[in-house]
Amino acid sequence: MGKMRRTHYSSEISSALQNNEAIIMGWVSSIRDHGNMQFVTITDRYGDIQVVAKRNECAEKLFDQIQQLKEHTSVAIRGKAKSQPKAPNGTEVIPLELKVFSMAKKPAPFMIQGKTSVGIDTRLNLRAVDLRRNYLKSIFSVRNTALNATRKFLSGLGFIEVNTPKMIATATEGGAALFPIFYYDREAFLAQSPQLYKEQLTMAFENVFEIGPIFRAEPSRTNRHLSEAISIDVEQAFVDYNDIMRLLEEMIIFIIDSIKETNKNELEYLDLQLQNLKLPFPKYSYSDIVSKLHEAQEYIKWGDDFSPQTIKNLQNDGIEAFYFITDWPTSIKPFYVKTKGEKDDDMMMCESFDLMYGSLEISSGSTRINRKDELLKRMKKQGLNADAFDYHLRVFDYGVPPHAGFGLGIERLLMAITKCDNIRDVTLYPRDIDRLKP
Amino acid sequence: MGKMRRTHYSSEISSALQNNEAIIMGWVSSIRDHGNMQFVTITDRYGDIQVVAKRNECAEKLFDQIQQLKEHTSVAIRGKAKSQPKAPNGTEVIPLELKVFSMAKKPAPFMIQGKTSVGIDTRLNLRAVDLRRNYLKSIFSVRNTALNATRKFLSGLGFIEVNTPKMIATATEGGAALFPIFYYDREAFLAQSPQLYKEQLTMAFENVFEIGPIFRAEPSRTNRHLSEAISIDVEQAFVDYNDIMRLLEEMIIFIIDSIKETNKNELEYLDLQLQNLKLPFPKYSYSDIVSKLHEAQEYIKWGDDFSPQTIKNLQNDGIEAFYFITDWPTSIKPFYVKTKGEKDDDMMMCESFDLMYGSLEISSGSTRINRKDELLKRMKKQGLNADAFDYHLRVFDYGVPPHAGFGLGIERLLMAITKCDNIRDVTLYPRDIDRLKP
Repeated sequence: MGKMRRTHYSSEISSALQNNEAIIMGWVSSIRDHGNMQFVTITDRYGDIQVVAKRNECAEKLFDQIQQLKEHTSVAIRGKAKSQPKAPNGTEVIPLELKVFSMAKKPAPFMIQGKTSVGIDTRLNLRAVDLRRNYLKSIFSVRNTALNATRKFLSGLGFIEVNTPKMIATATEGGAALFPIFYYDREAFLAQSPQLYKEQLTMAFENVFEIGPIFRAEPSRTNRHLSEAISIDVEQAFVDYNDIMRLLEEMIIFIIDSIKETNKNELEYLDLQLQNLKLPFPKYSYSDIVSKLHEAQEYIKWGDDFSPQTIKNLQNDGIEAFYFITDWPTSIKPFYVKTKGEKDDDMMMCESFDLMYGSLEISSGSTRINRKDELLKRMKKQGLNADAFDYHLRVFDYGVPPHAGFGLGIERLLMAITKCDNIRDVTLYPRDIDRLKP
Repeated sequence: MGKMRRTHYSSEISSALQNNEAIIMGWVSSIRDHGNMQFVTITDRYGDIQVVAKRNECAEKLFDQIQQLKEHTSVAIRGKAKSQPKAPNGTEVIPLELKVFSMAKKPAPFMIQGKTSVGIDTRLNLRAVDLRRNYLKSIFSVRNTALNATRKFLSGLGFIEVNTPKMIATATEGGAALFPIFYYDREAFLAQSPQLYKEQLTMAFENVFEIGPIFRAEPSRTNRHLSEAISIDVEQAFVDYNDIMRLLEEMIIFIIDSIKETNKNELEYLDLQLQNLKLPFPKYSYSDIVSKLHEAQEYIKWGDDFSPQTIKNLQNDGIEAFYFITDWPTSIKPFYVKTKGEKDDDMMMCESFDLMYGSLEISSGSTRINRKDELLKRMKKQGLNADAFDYHLRVFDYGVPPHAGFGLGIERLLMAITKCDNIRDVTLYPRDIDRLKP
């Protein structure tokens, strides 16, 4: 690095600097060679700067150096600001000194300008370079806002952020397959969710959330599944699933409002008009949806899960944007989900919801069981071995409060917000059955 | 849950409520049975409420119910606020209705009052109950402030928070042992740090940070090592390790100031007076420390690492609190750490630092190599197979900027701040060679 330090970001190179010196740093995003005149665009995290070298106004050695630059090269340029209506911010830089930090060795296999590009696999193989594209920089800036807004919203309500272990002893919840690990001399697994831990933590902290990785050995190749995703997990004591649905819809609106406020430029670049959502979100019970399907002559048995395709077919029927499907059959939800009541009929349904965006499931939540006997009964019914849950069950001897919560996949939410149709593109380094690198 | 909802937290039960009804919820933290009078303390996340039932002023059934309560039971009480100078906030609650959500079945094997308690293993086996202790609630409240402050500090400087994959293809950095996983049909590993990913991400985002789990198969049984820890990882483009040390010390001061401001009650309970730190933190080069050791008649060869005990012995020499040890021998730092220069003598030392607190290493950082040829040379020298780093090395063909950064263990920092001497106690659910549950 030496002693040279950046004095101005691209966004700060404006007419206010006229005739003053500045040191800019970034990478070469384009070069136009007009023989005796070189136009070089330097891009930093905030945008572009036009650098113009004229052979007769520039030291010969410097002009030669500039002529040898290649796209993606990482540089520092000391130069003088000069008004130029056609340049970004109406100002260009006349170079006085160039320092090459790292010269690019090859042309990239894709253009960094433009929203569309080559196939995603070529880009993922060189992801760090791919991420220099404005399209992805905009997406990840929106993601950053979404996560900051989530934390602000939940902290504002007194939720404590926690971190629970990702290496766990027992393949617990059933459903999604787990990745096994060697834990010293034992077998262990990667956590598919912080579910049981966040439930336990309501005993001491009442309101907790975690934003962290979850791991699912999901062998299907779809555009909406990842083997490793980031989940926003929320759990609250002394409430039920109705309270939690209200919390969740308010959180979604807070996130979207924050993006509208913070990411004006990115939304414009992505050509996105975010809708004004109204509270409360529409709610359809599972049974409502089954009836709608029957009306549409689609066969489904009460108790079966919906496929995304089934739900897609319903969208012509006015179901779109964000909505809840509530009161699912108990048999297709995990053992810790509380039933609607204790009578036979009520036990068939549970206090649960999925938050949907069109046919995409964004979040799942429910009232949880807080009594040990009830939990044991349900585990038995779902064929789970209670001994394996020993360490979880024992805290239920000490007054677990009633509680409810949800898990939300940030990648799915980003797909809904940015209209990006491949979950891999809203993930920095996606993991799936075919991809473990980079 | 039913329709009953909490109307007031403990902190809101004050004389302003006199004679008004309130619904409180929480768990029973103590019971004093005076025959015709029952004193019950209900604890919620913000503190305690005293509930007083007198036999002749209370419905018989309600009095019996209250008499049967056990510690840790989770309850709701509807009652009337009444001034009582001896109660928390000068107000107690006269019960009108009790709802038991979940009756405690056993007495806990430890008291929840008091800072010290039984051995840590007994407590960890029942961690969620253990976390109801004021001591731990205070520690984790400080932790929450520390993480919020970190995010505020870094976001304020324009850093973007990222999430990088925890399942990786190659056992990379050398040093710490990795946990192997079954990744579908392949072998993979849990990431011991986001190092290479965060370095790559400086290409597109310049300033990034990640707060997430790191995994180290650390077989030693000490009070300062975990198999799974939470690391604050920071990486910045166009700076070197001196800039990063300044960033880090300012961050530490920001965190400590935030704790002083936010956690007055907790600091008082923990009996902690946080020092006023001065900038810059003291800096000793590795060679300085070796000389000091030689003066103290302690034998160490230039190039060897220090043991915590060696450093402890030096503390009588005035080294305490936070300080940096800089310019370490290149041979004991990872391959991606930049040497002090290109000449032979300079190559023996590298632009690296450890942030210490007494004899506890809190953070490690350095200037990183940003040129492929230099990186390849160093990998060869350290006996690493360049092919295994294929996916990392290829981005170095596209102008990686100069960059520097650090990783900081939040648990270690909390030990330093709270004077807690076992890292397990500042971790919600610790993992080590002996412990994988709960």
